[in-house]
Amino acid sequence: MGFGVIEQDPHQHYHALDWGIIRTSQKDSEASRLAQLQEAMQELIRQTKPDMASIEKLFFFRNAKTLMPVSQARGVILVTFYQAGLSYVEYTPMQVKLNMTGYGRSSKTDIQQMVQQLLNMEEPVKSDDAADALAIALSCAFEQQSTSLLAARF
Amino acid sequence: MGFGVIEQDPHQHYHALDWGIIRTSQKDSEASRLAQLQEAMQELIRQTKPDMASIEKLFFFRNAKTLMPVSQARGVILVTFYQAGLSYVEYTPMQVKLNMTGYGRSSKTDIQQMVQQLLNMEEPVKSDDAADALAIALSCAFEQQSTSLLAARF
Repeated sequence: MGFGVIEQDPHQHYHALDWGIIRTSQKDSEASRLAQLQEAMQELIRQTKPDMASIEKLFFFRNAKTLMPVSQARGVILVTFYQAGLSYVEYTPMQVKLNMTGYGRSSKTDIQQMVQQLLNMEEPVKSDDAADALAIALSCAFEQQSTSLLAARF
Repeated sequence: MGFGVIEQDPHQHYHALDWGIIRTSQKDSEASRLAQLQEAMQELIRQTKPDMASIEKLFFFRNAKTLMPVSQARGVILVTFYQAGLSYVEYTPMQVKLNMTGYGRSSKTDIQQMVQQLLNMEEPVKSDDAADALAIALSCAFEQQSTSLLAARF
């Protein structure tokens, strides 16, 4: 799962506080992997103290094989947000692309470039999932009154 | 979500300790409903102290509209099992029917009758989901060395 945390500075610019991928081993049981995901997310929330969260909206026409494990993980993440007192907004991949580039079918490289530019980063974020998560956080930042945001994408 | 908890008595017979449906309001947010589900399940585990858990196995060809919310709930339940230290076994609806009646396409009424008989209950369990959960618990009991079992089905 990709994640990104951004924060507004006193000049109203957003900066990336943290981003990356939470990975678990396929050798572990489903339940253990979901618990590891929850613990990593709880730790991230403790460290970065976001005001608000955002998450990718899933569709049932997504790849059927991955829909079930991804939905299971998403359920765990939603409970984690709720228990941390974080309200959340959902974004479809198309909304995020529109918000980032004004074009709903922009490429992964377009998104990475916009994320780098908007967050004033020295290098583009290499992981697509992490770049997408930062893009979701930025989409949320543009629409909500919030100074620090956490986003998750699957 | 339907649940059932069974326990073995000193004569090797199983009895139903608790069964029913955990419902949440459609007015509440997805995250709040998932958190309510987790709290209800944690409370059930505290009260009935099962040795082991079992859960319905889902398939991606299940009704696509319900697959996502059901998988989200299932993810939360698996984490709850894990955090309570409960190992779990998964059963498909067909395995449960075979275990209960020897016939993989038996009716809901057949299952309800077998559950009533095997658990020595005065009346059949009215809710299909709760009866199915008890049937999952019994399936697990037949195969595992365990004296008290909790089961969940969606």
